[in-house]
Amino acid sequence: MMDPRHAILFESVQIGPKTLPNRFYQVPHASGFGSARPLTQAAFRGIKAEGGWGGVCVEYSPVSADADEEPHVAAYLQDDRDAAALRPTVEAIHRHGALAGVELYHGGNSSKNVTSRHTRIAPSAAAAEIRWGSSAREMDLDDIARVQADFVHAARLARDIGFDIVYVYGAHGYLLTQFLSPWHNLRTDAYGGSLAGRARFALETLEKVRDAIGDDCAIATRFCLDGRSGVKGVRVEEMLRFVQLAEPLVDLFDVTVGSWPEDSGTSRYYPEGHQLSWTSQVREATSKPIVGVGRYTNPDQMAALIASGQFDLIGAARPAIADPFLPRKIAEGRLGDIRECTGSNVCILKEEDFRHVGCIQNPTAGEEYRRSWHPEEVPTTDDPDRAVLVIGAGPAGMECALTLGRRGFAAVHLVEASDDIGGRLTWTRRLPTLGDWGRIIDWRRTQLDRLDNVQVITGRRLDVADVLDYGAGIVVVATGSHWSDGGTQPGTRRPILGSAGSLTPERVMAGDRPGGQRVAVYDCDGYYVAPGIAELLAAEGYEVHLVTPEAVVSPMSDGTLEGDMLRRHLHDVGIAMHTGITLRERRPGSVIGETAYEDPWSLEVDDLVLVTHQVPDDTLYRALAADSERLADAGISALHLIGDARSPRWISEAVFDGHRLARELDLPSPDFPAPLRRDLPV
Amino acid sequence: MMDPRHAILFESVQIGPKTLPNRFYQVPHASGFGSARPLTQAAFRGIKAEGGWGGVCVEYSPVSADADEEPHVAAYLQDDRDAAALRPTVEAIHRHGALAGVELYHGGNSSKNVTSRHTRIAPSAAAAEIRWGSSAREMDLDDIARVQADFVHAARLARDIGFDIVYVYGAHGYLLTQFLSPWHNLRTDAYGGSLAGRARFALETLEKVRDAIGDDCAIATRFCLDGRSGVKGVRVEEMLRFVQLAEPLVDLFDVTVGSWPEDSGTSRYYPEGHQLSWTSQVREATSKPIVGVGRYTNPDQMAALIASGQFDLIGAARPAIADPFLPRKIAEGRLGDIRECTGSNVCILKEEDFRHVGCIQNPTAGEEYRRSWHPEEVPTTDDPDRAVLVIGAGPAGMECALTLGRRGFAAVHLVEASDDIGGRLTWTRRLPTLGDWGRIIDWRRTQLDRLDNVQVITGRRLDVADVLDYGAGIVVVATGSHWSDGGTQPGTRRPILGSAGSLTPERVMAGDRPGGQRVAVYDCDGYYVAPGIAELLAAEGYEVHLVTPEAVVSPMSDGTLEGDMLRRHLHDVGIAMHTGITLRERRPGSVIGETAYEDPWSLEVDDLVLVTHQVPDDTLYRALAADSERLADAGISALHLIGDARSPRWISEAVFDGHRLARELDLPSPDFPAPLRRDLPV
Repeated sequence: MMDPRHAILFESVQIGPKTLPNRFYQVPHASGFGSARPLTQAAFRGIKAEGGWGGVCVEYSPVSADADEEPHVAAYLQDDRDAAALRPTVEAIHRHGALAGVELYHGGNSSKNVTSRHTRIAPSAAAAEIRWGSSAREMDLDDIARVQADFVHAARLARDIGFDIVYVYGAHGYLLTQFLSPWHNLRTDAYGGSLAGRARFALETLEKVRDAIGDDCAIATRFCLDGRSGVKGVRVEEMLRFVQLAEPLVDLFDVTVGSWPEDSGTSRYYPEGHQLSWTSQVREATSKPIVGVGRYTNPDQMAALIASGQFDLIGAARPAIADPFLPRKIAEGRLGDIRECTGSNVCILKEEDFRHVGCIQNPTAGEEYRRSWHPEEVPTTDDPDRAVLVIGAGPAGMECALTLGRRGFAAVHLVEASDDIGGRLTWTRRLPTLGDWGRIIDWRRTQLDRLDNVQVITGRRLDVADVLDYGAGIVVVATGSHWSDGGTQPGTRRPILGSAGSLTPERVMAGDRPGGQRVAVYDCDGYYVAPGIAELLAAEGYEVHLVTPEAVVSPMSDGTLEGDMLRRHLHDVGIAMHTGITLRERRPGSVIGETAYEDPWSLEVDDLVLVTHQVPDDTLYRALAADSERLADAGISALHLIGDARSPRWISEAVFDGHRLARELDLPSPDFPAPLRRDLPV
Repeated sequence: MMDPRHAILFESVQIGPKTLPNRFYQVPHASGFGSARPLTQAAFRGIKAEGGWGGVCVEYSPVSADADEEPHVAAYLQDDRDAAALRPTVEAIHRHGALAGVELYHGGNSSKNVTSRHTRIAPSAAAAEIRWGSSAREMDLDDIARVQADFVHAARLARDIGFDIVYVYGAHGYLLTQFLSPWHNLRTDAYGGSLAGRARFALETLEKVRDAIGDDCAIATRFCLDGRSGVKGVRVEEMLRFVQLAEPLVDLFDVTVGSWPEDSGTSRYYPEGHQLSWTSQVREATSKPIVGVGRYTNPDQMAALIASGQFDLIGAARPAIADPFLPRKIAEGRLGDIRECTGSNVCILKEEDFRHVGCIQNPTAGEEYRRSWHPEEVPTTDDPDRAVLVIGAGPAGMECALTLGRRGFAAVHLVEASDDIGGRLTWTRRLPTLGDWGRIIDWRRTQLDRLDNVQVITGRRLDVADVLDYGAGIVVVATGSHWSDGGTQPGTRRPILGSAGSLTPERVMAGDRPGGQRVAVYDCDGYYVAPGIAELLAAEGYEVHLVTPEAVVSPMSDGTLEGDMLRRHLHDVGIAMHTGITLRERRPGSVIGETAYEDPWSLEVDDLVLVTHQVPDDTLYRALAADSERLADAGISALHLIGDARSPRWISEAVFDGHRLARELDLPSPDFPAPLRRDLPV
């Protein structure tokens, strides 16, 4: 039952000609589906409407031929075929009573145009904002009229297929912001100069779109408040003035801050709601509805924010990926069931680099259509009268046991050798700034507790005989992995001479410390582990050298929008970074290696922490699998290996693997994932 | 008429049950079209068959679910829908009498699987070969049987839609090579150990595929000879022994060398045919037909190679992109018409990073379907009785004048201010190692010479009055761009204090030299210009510092497979590289800037070369465009701006822009590219 303090979140609100049924609003965000995978898009967004989000938006919709985003995926809205591709999504959102929103977009100088080969356009001629290509030309008045007509054309297409909320999109440094920004806009005509001039392009576009569809649709716009956008941004005073100018044309203001890495800041660097110091200022400038994000997952905080009047809607991208049913769970008072976003930005890495969104918390995110996975429903097993033993309560084991429990197996035992569940997450969450990653454990702990058919047993290490005697007919081994303590490195597949028995992340997190003041952390992993260990040791006063064969420290963190902040932070806390170095040998008092140019390199250090390569802990599995007769004699009909023990991988993929096996356990060959349903092109 | 010395190139050759009509063979290479754009693929490959290539292959076809290459584009062959997508390509190739080939593939540890979320497989458990993900698991015997069955299934699909040549693909470090390689394969079972063991997977797969389709199709395989593949490769002696073992199962051996950056080596680092020192050894091991590549464009060299018996077919990827009609031109004795590959690898950058192949020489490459462009045919203008003045004979101007000439305009004048045509290419081709880029000029010079309706006038700088008086009804301005000599930088959009009048690439290439021994070359461009200038100055004895705000030197060169070789080369010739540095000021005897962490940075140098930003040379155009009445009075009905003068860009895009305008000149709005034809999904 809903907590009455949260009732304010379920009040409807008028935006232009439309009524939003509640205050939960999934803001526009990329998915990798765009208009290229219409049914995947429809299922992904439809689930959110089903989960109670009153407004659900798709990603950016380039309106013009010279706003080409290929090879990235976007929800193009330029012709009837584009429109047809998005229609199933609108229908899926409407099916659950939510409003559907679309983000009409032109990137201007940020548009790729590498595939279309169009010349990039911008308010003023300049070097290109993005790597690919070289420059943008100044828009002439014909370009301005053409792009505005494209916005209107796209708006009509959107209206005609049923979109309720149509954005004229300005945020994230795209064309409308480029006109507003004195850094980008050096025009001397009516579209430059004073704020009124720089705002003209956006205001005219809003007006034309409003004239065309304003009776039928709510007109939204999204702009960013200053934040850390630096020289490229628009001062907050000017943005507030712009809001005042735009107010008569706008039904909903969607406000962000600064650059994308700031706006979608990870939990490592930004607390929830960090954007408010900027975004809350918009209320001064308008009485129209306002929405903003803050990675909010706590309904008390949400209700307070709405009550304060700073926002009218709670915007969310990442929390809605981690838990599409967040609103419904609040409505039903099931607060402990909320699967809280960790702020890892794995979703962004997957969407940007893989063109397929996913989630470290929610293994069903992005799998709604192609695997027919629902975040809240799992098929009950046809043969419930079975016992399953899951060995190892790391990310894969926890999720597997939980999902098997939800599927109704008679008895599921999750047996963990250490004193607590969580596996590598038990120490990952204690790395500096990674505390929110602990939510992956916390949510599963709560859920496991609620299932009568699942028993969690900690502090018990099983050997082969224990497993054979256990009495479970199905055994799932999820014993994880450990970091090589001999420095076996991906680049050479060989150990580092003299490094056997060196410190590893697990040992440091268990309390072992370097034997001396100066320590090298050798990172062949390129993500968060080595920087975390380095930062922890630096905070304790060690002289820390982060050494990596990569050209930059932690290249994977660029995919999560953290790279620049991470490297800056490591630098600021005094960690020396050595890139392009392959270590070959450890000697007393030094490490020896070579540069990317094969020049000799060495560093005087007292100790070495190796973050080189994860080794599967699959001994138990291999011993069990070696004798199928013995298994049969013990009544074990199926033996499976999942997660890092099968093959070390990201936490998101280990969670996925545990979930997948549990879903597909009754298929003929559950160790190999079932075929994916193909999307249907329009 | 064909030179009789080249007749050997037009002899047919038997490969298994099929007859190749001649010795020209477009080897498998990626395009970005795969099975995702069936008609684009069909048009792209069909043009090559039309141009005389006797064998035409598509790109890699992943056969298994765990060989997922998304978000890259591949020609999947796993079910009937995949097959249907490739059928138009087979038909297009057959239409012109060529044989169609397909490359059945499993990447093993190199497979991405980031979108499918399959666990990566490999002969032995190991860290992942690619950035995304973390590791690969050891294939068990079920995996081996499954993948081999997938090869057979894909082979049957290929046969059924008419492919003539079916590869069991081993090269480029993929699964078959991983089994062969002692670095990858640490197995102790029958699939590891001795060469016979390591070869077993490949030989069994070849045998199964042969059993299934060997009566209907030629069975090809592709393997790499040692080269510079280093520790990961297979020693050449073992590969030759493998060829002997495989011979009874194989109808065509396709041989490559080392790593991809070596096999597709750019002209900067590899001469034509550099692979032969390795690939020619295969003849010792087999009497079956052999094909290999060498970026050959010279028919004398090709004929000699066939006559030598080292190869039976001339393989080509890049030369067939630069000139799909290369074989026909040789057959017709039109050697001067061959559009020779420059070895820039822009095709690879476009295919890999943009997922759409293109070419620096051939503006129609990749445009066959969506723009209906044929490389050898342009539509004759409906209104030939017009004169066109093209001002500026750089890449855009040359190509525009040439294409207008081919379209039959009565008079086309290409007027160039300097003493020779070529624009920025006149100095680019003189940068160390970039000589082959001069082919962009050379080919156009030859072609322009042959057109009676085109006049090339050099050494004449036109001002506004000259243009108005010229007598041409259509004026195309292609006056190029120059490098900012004030250091206006993309990252700040501001000049560098005190740097006005500094050296630029053009000035250095015109003979100006630094005023002192120590010089900084400041690179905000990130491609070939700054490294070229640095190398040139270093060769003359200057102490050269290459300074860049980028995290690595010349990141764009990674897209052309040159990055590692380029940086290694710069290091080896003694150029100091400073990355992550933003220059703020030039002072006498030093340059001042800051690091990526905003720490102060400075360097004592005597002079500075600025490679920061290209500025359009559009003064003439703007002066002409400012007074439309005056234009009308002068009888000028149309004025266009193309290439760098419109917006500075890559050479490939400038050539494209000139070509496009010439093709679309008679459309209502030729300054904005005509809409693209959409591909039809199957």
